[in-house]
Amino acid sequence: MSEHVYKHIELTGSSTKSIEDAVEGAVKRAATTVRNMRWFEVEQIRGQVDQQQVSYWQVVLKIGFTLEP
Amino acid sequence: MSEHVYKHIELTGSSTKSIEDAVEGAVKRAATTVRNMRWFEVEQIRGQVDQQQVSYWQVVLKIGFTLEP
Amino acid sequence: MSEHVYKHIELTGSSTKSIEDAVEGAVKRAATTVRNMRWFEVEQIRGQVDQQQVSYWQVVLKIGFTLEP
Amino acid sequence: MSEHVYKHIELTGSSTKSIEDAVEGAVKRAATTVRNMRWFEVEQIRGQVDQQQVSYWQVVLKIGFTLEP
Amino acid sequence: MSEHVYKHIELTGSSTKSIEDAVEGAVKRAATTVRNMRWFEVEQIRGQVDQQQVSYWQVVLKIGFTLEP
Amino acid sequence: MSEHVYKHIELTGSSTKSIEDAVEGAVKRAATTVRNMRWFEVEQIRGQVDQQQVSYWQVVLKIGFTLEP
Amino acid sequence: MSEHVYKHIELTGSSTKSIEDAVEGAVKRAATTVRNMRWFEVEQIRGQVDQQQVSYWQVVLKIGFTLEP
Amino acid sequence: MSEHVYKHIELTGSSTKSIEDAVEGAVKRAATTVRNMRWFEVEQIRGQVDQQQVSYWQVVLKIGFTLEP
Amino acid sequence: MSEHVYKHIELTGSSTKSIEDAVEGAVKRAATTVRNMRWFEVEQIRGQVDQQQVSYWQVVLKIGFTLEP
Amino acid sequence: MSEHVYKHIELTGSSTKSIEDAVEGAVKRAATTVRNMRWFEVEQIRGQVDQQQVSYWQVVLKIGFTLEP
Amino acid sequence: MSEHVYKHIELTGSSTKSIEDAVEGAVKRAATTVRNMRWFEVEQIRGQVDQQQVSYWQVVLKIGFTLEP
Amino acid sequence: MSEHVYKHIELTGSSTKSIEDAVEGAVKRAATTVRNMRWFEVEQIRGQVDQQQVSYWQVVLKIGFTLEP
Repeated sequence: MSEHVYKHIELTGSSTKSIEDAVEGAVKRAATTVRNMRWFEVEQIRGQVDQQQVSYWQVVLKIGFTLEP
Repeated sequence: MSEHVYKHIELTGSSTKSIEDAVEGAVKRAATTVRNMRWFEVEQIRGQVDQQQVSYWQVVLKIGFTLEP
Repeated sequence: MSEHVYKHIELTGSSTKSIEDAVEGAVKRAATTVRNMRWFEVEQIRGQVDQQQVSYWQVVLKIGFTLEP
Repeated sequence: MSEHVYKHIELTGSSTKSIEDAVEGAVKRAATTVRNMRWFEVEQIRGQVDQQQVSYWQVVLKIGFTLEP
Repeated sequence: MSEHVYKHIELTGSSTKSIEDAVEGAVKRAATTVRNMRWFEVEQIRGQVDQQQVSYWQVVLKIGFTLEP
Repeated sequence: MSEHVYKHIELTGSSTKSIEDAVEGAVKRAATTVRNMRWFEVEQIRGQVDQQQVSYWQVVLKIGFTLEP
Repeated sequence: MSEHVYKHIELTGSSTKSIEDAVEGAVKRAATTVRNMRWFEVEQIRGQVDQQQVSYWQVVLKIGFTLEP
Repeated sequence: MSEHVYKHIELTGSSTKSIEDAVEGAVKRAATTVRNMRWFEVEQIRGQVDQQQVSYWQVVLKIGFTLEP
Repeated sequence: MSEHVYKHIELTGSSTKSIEDAVEGAVKRAATTVRNMRWFEVEQIRGQVDQQQVSYWQVVLKIGFTLEP
Repeated sequence: MSEHVYKHIELTGSSTKSIEDAVEGAVKRAATTVRNMRWFEVEQIRGQVDQQQVSYWQVVLKIGFTLEP
Repeated sequence: MSEHVYKHIELTGSSTKSIEDAVEGAVKRAATTVRNMRWFEVEQIRGQVDQQQVSYWQVVLKIGFTLEP
Repeated sequence: MSEHVYKHIELTGSSTKSIEDAVEGAVKRAATTVRNMRWFEVEQIRGQVDQQQVSYWQVVLKIGFTLEP
C-alpha cells in the first residue's frame, strides 16, 4: 500500500428484500463505471411504505475507490 | 402530488430476528392507528444482550404519513 | 435494579454474511472477557469491497455491561 | 409565564413557491388540531425535482405548543 | 419482555428550581395522557433569564412508552 | 418504481436574490450534465458580505438522480 | 489576500417577512459596531407562532470579519 | 416584541456544588458587562476530578441578549 | 505538566436522586480500578420511568486519566 | 465574482509524512482531472498503524471548484 | 483554581505553511486584546486553492480565557 | 483477512511540537500495552495556551486493534 488517493461517491441503493441487498445492488451498479472499489460506509437507512407495509429499503452509502496515480 | 403536509411519529420496534423485522413490526403496529404512511427513516439500531448473547434488536425509526387536507 | 454503574466498550465486528452476524460475532468475542453484558448500540455500518463486490460487513458497536459493585 | 409543559410535533410542509410558504402551510394545517402553538424550528430543507426543475420545497419542522395544565 | 413497540413523544418541561424538577414536571404532565412510560432522554437544557438572573430551567426530553399490542 | 440506484452530487449555488434562487440556479446548471434528477437536500446556507451588506446567498445542496440500470 | 485573522460573532436576526430579511437585519445591525465583514453562515432557522400563525422568522447566524493586523 | 437582533456569547461557568450553580455563576458574571439577557443554552457539561472525586462542575453555555436598536 | 498521554473510559452512572449524584457514583466506582483521574465529560442524560415517575437518573460520561509514562 | 455554481468532490489523500502532505497530494491528484479548484475542507483525519507505529496519515477532504457556466 | 468563569471567542487563523502555524497566528493576534488565555479547540480545518495548489490553510478555533472576577 | 473482531481505545496524546507528534506519542504509549494496532482516527484537536502562546497540542484519538480470536 503506497501514497494512494481515493475518491468517494455517494449512492442510494434500494431493495424490496433487505438492507444488505440494497447495499449490494448499489455496489454492483457502481461496478459498471468505477474500478478498484475498496470500502463502503452506510450513511442512512430509510425506505418506502406502501399499503401500510415496508415496500422498499433504501440505503444511502459512500463508496471509496483508488484513483490510478 | 400536491401541497401536502406530512406528520412524523417516532417509534422503537423490537425483534428477536433481525433489524428488518424490528422495522416491519413497528410499521405494522403503527398501521393500526395511522393511515397513509409514506416513508420511514432508521434513527438508531441497538439491542439487548441476555446470557451473553443478542436477545433483541431494537430499531428507533421515524414514520411519515400524509395528513388529510 | 439498583444504583449500578455500567462500563461501555467499543468494538468492530466483521462478517461475510450480514450486519446482524457481525454484531453477534463481536458480542460472542466480548463474552470471553466481559461478564454481565446488557445492551449494545450500533455506531457505524461499513464494509470492504473486493473484486467489485461486498466482501465484509463491518459494524462498529458499543456494548454496555454492569460493573460489580 | 409559569411552569408550563410544552409538546413538540414534527411535520413536513410542502410548497411550490418558497421555503417560508412550506412552513406556513404546515403551521396552518397544524392549527386545525393543535392549540396554543408557540414556536417552530426548521430541521431540514429539501425538495422534489421534476422535469429538471425544482417542483416542490419540502421543509421538516418541529412545532412547540403549550399543554393545558 | 417480548416484541414490544414503543412510541416516543417530545416535551419541554420548565421549572424555577432545577433541571431535575423540569424533567419530573414533564413526566408528571405526560402521565395524565400516556400509560406505560419506560424511559426518557434529555435532548437539550436551556432556560430563561429575567432581571439578569436565571428564572426558568427548560429541558427538552423524549419519553418512550410501550404501545399495547 | 423499481429497484433503482440513485447517485448524489454536491453543489453550491449562489444568488444575489434569495436562498430559493441559489438552489434553482444550481439545479439548472446540473441539468446541463445530469438526467433524471429526483430530489435535493439543502446542507448549508451561507453567503458573502460586501460593503457591510449581504451580496451573495450561497447554498450547499445535494442532488439525487436515477442511474440508468 | 494575506495571512489574516478573522473573528466570528453569533447573532439572531428576526423578521416578520422572510428568512433573508432576518439575516439582512442582523448584518445591518452588526455593521454599526463591526467593520470588514466578509461572510455569514446560517446556523438555525426558527420562529414564533402567535394566533396560530407564523409571526416572526428568527435566524441564528455567524458573521466573520477581518481583524486589523 | 419587535424585529430585534440578539447577540450570543459563550461562557464556561464552574462550581463545586452543582450544574445549576455553575450556570448561575456564569450568568451573574455576564451581568456585570452585558444587559438585557434573555435566554441561555447549555452546550456541554464537564468537570474536574481531583483526589479521585469530582471537584468542579464546568458548564459551557451560550447566553443571548437583545442588542439596542 | 509535561507530554502526558491520557486514557478515556466511558461509563453510565445511575442514581435515584440527581444527575450530579449519578456522575459522582460513576467516578467513585471508577476510583476502585483507575488512578490519576483528571476530568469527565457528560455525554448523555437519560433515565428510567416506573409507575409513571422518574425512578433513575442515568448519566453516560467519559472519564480521562493520566497514563503512567 | 458572479452567480457561479461550484461542484464538490470528496477524496482521501494519504501520506507517510504529515496531514498537510496528505491534503496536498489529494489536491495535486485532483488537478489532473478538475479545473478551477477554489477551496477544500478537511472532513476526517485518520491513519494506518503498522508495526506499532503510524505508517500513513489519511485525510478525507472535500474540494470545491467552479463549474463553467 | 477556584470558581472561575471563562469566556470563549471564535477566530479563523490562516497560514501558507501549516495547520499549526494558522492556530499560532490566531492565538498571537488574540493576545493583543485578550488576557489569560487558557485553551483552544480546533473546530474546522479548511483552505484556499489557487493555481491548482493549496495556497492557504485556514483553521477555525475557539479560545477560552479566564474572566477577572 | 478473516472475520476479525477489533477493539477501540480512546486516548489523548499531547506534544509541544505538532499535531502529528501528539498522535505518534499516543500510539507509542499504547504500544506498551496493546498489540496488533491497525488504525487510528483523530476525534478532536485542542491545546493549552500559556503566557499567551500555544504550549501544548492535545489530540484525542481512537485506536483500533485486532483481538486474538
